[in-house]
Amino acid sequence: MNNPISSLFQIQYPIIQGGMVWCSGWKLAAAVSNAGGLGLIGSGSMSPDLLEEHILKCKAATSKPFGVNIPLLYPHAEAHIQTLLKHEVKIVFTSAGNPATYTSMLKAAGCKVVHVIANTKFALKAMDAGVDAIVAEGFEAGGHNGREETTTFCLLPQIAAIAKVPIIAAGGMLDGRSWLAAEVLGAQGIQVGSRFAICQESSAHPNYKAAVIAAKEGDTQLCLKKLTPVRMLKNDFYQEVEKLELAGASKETLKELLGKGRSKKGILEGDLVQGELEIGEISALLNKVETAQEIIDDFVNTYAAAKRGLTYQNLLA
Amino acid sequence: MNNPISSLFQIQYPIIQGGMVWCSGWKLAAAVSNAGGLGLIGSGSMSPDLLEEHILKCKAATSKPFGVNIPLLYPHAEAHIQTLLKHEVKIVFTSAGNPATYTSMLKAAGCKVVHVIANTKFALKAMDAGVDAIVAEGFEAGGHNGREETTTFCLLPQIAAIAKVPIIAAGGMLDGRSWLAAEVLGAQGIQVGSRFAICQESSAHPNYKAAVIAAKEGDTQLCLKKLTPVRMLKNDFYQEVEKLELAGASKETLKELLGKGRSKKGILEGDLVQGELEIGEISALLNKVETAQEIIDDFVNTYAAAKRGLTYQNLLA
Repeated sequence: MNNPISSLFQIQYPIIQGGMVWCSGWKLAAAVSNAGGLGLIGSGSMSPDLLEEHILKCKAATSKPFGVNIPLLYPHAEAHIQTLLKHEVKIVFTSAGNPATYTSMLKAAGCKVVHVIANTKFALKAMDAGVDAIVAEGFEAGGHNGREETTTFCLLPQIAAIAKVPIIAAGGMLDGRSWLAAEVLGAQGIQVGSRFAICQESSAHPNYKAAVIAAKEGDTQLCLKKLTPVRMLKNDFYQEVEKLELAGASKETLKELLGKGRSKKGILEGDLVQGELEIGEISALLNKVETAQEIIDDFVNTYAAAKRGLTYQNLLA
Repeated sequence: MNNPISSLFQIQYPIIQGGMVWCSGWKLAAAVSNAGGLGLIGSGSMSPDLLEEHILKCKAATSKPFGVNIPLLYPHAEAHIQTLLKHEVKIVFTSAGNPATYTSMLKAAGCKVVHVIANTKFALKAMDAGVDAIVAEGFEAGGHNGREETTTFCLLPQIAAIAKVPIIAAGGMLDGRSWLAAEVLGAQGIQVGSRFAICQESSAHPNYKAAVIAAKEGDTQLCLKKLTPVRMLKNDFYQEVEKLELAGASKETLKELLGKGRSKKGILEGDLVQGELEIGEISALLNKVETAQEIIDDFVNTYAAAKRGLTYQNLLA
């Protein structure tokens, strides 16, 4: 496939598995890379030692390229970067912070660097910092999300208008139709989160996977906007958040309710009542646990079908 | 063009101009219909007498099909329906209410009936009521909007999975790329709001058009969720709304602030401070006042270019 994202990472398909706390360890990353996409170890929930262990296990499990996602506001960001340089991981996705901090250093070390953005301002900052590509993430995506609430449909043409590097679309990526639609709107590749979050190789708890499968439309919400906006399932914990927010609770009150380890409790330990169950809007359309290979195959097949459909229509027109 | 929406309305292109309060009178509707799309008179801001006047003027200004949009929760809905039946308007778009109320009566009178939905529940209700097509409107759309906050990217495959009638995509419709992406995601036609709201034939105030053109990303917000969710520009009036909402204001307090005639003040009278400036997220990418003809031409040209691009890639692959 002659595609700038596939070429950049030397992978078969321009499909990236999003780095997701408590979901994307070495097992998921290796499975996605082995299936022809790009697997990312999500370091956001890991200690530096644990990240090292995951990198080594991932190297043992795949000979294909894989990467690490590093949320820059995370306290271990610096240590994580030393760890991945030590083990010569050559693909780094950074998010939630200033792309200027580490990009040139990582580039000098021979890494391909991608930064996740949700608006034009950070897209420009990331390009100024010298990134190789950007992930443009829409409002419908799960987990932490931009304050502008710009949807994938509106964000892609906006970023395409200024982009000097390839764009990877994130938010709402269901299957090959989403992939082709993202291409039409200006992206060259896609990042898939929710569907991989509940796949067989995801380290998330079976309770969490079942809750996502049971979710219907309107069952996720972007909330905690006074702190850092995050999209999650509307479980009991969410109801508490909503009640406080509707009553005009302060940042401090919300921080106290949030406490520590809510996403670990929900996603890794499967506490559906008190846990924070981060997931995207597209969860409404997910209905089974698949393997990473099945997901990649389905994206590739439905993409080809969608493209054939349009080409056929084109021949008719 | 061999397309179910074009065939349904006997129009050249499956491009609908959304019915918009204070923007889409006879002048805009006739201009869009004359350009090969489907113009809709937005009756939401009209008295029954005024609607009659607009229907008569629209008939005088175009020999092409046009329609009327009727928000069903509006007090004059029943009178409006009598008016359009009297003048044999054969295309009716209903919204914001129960599609079962008037659909069969309108169908019996020979009308094509379309209902605007933002979720599966109302899509099913509309199809049960016998509509000819549905408008699926995403979170990024301007004005009144669904509570589920489902974006166009997520809504379309969701509705496509259950639709037994053609789908018209709304929310985020910038140009022919949006149109083609909407088709890829399962729509057969599109409804364009914001871009027509600020076109030459729109009856909106020049101040409003200028404010929309000046708007950047993140400058609109869905708010008033305790009443009826509505997307608007973040002007002074919005800041007042936000302040009250963040402080946990009650429905009653918000109703009092909203008062009456806020959208008229903003959109028709051009009061950018105290008016309610309804518009979609895509306003961030709008940068000029065009004629309806120029807008339709641009959609058609950029759609063809986007399709050629994909077909060309397809030949390469």
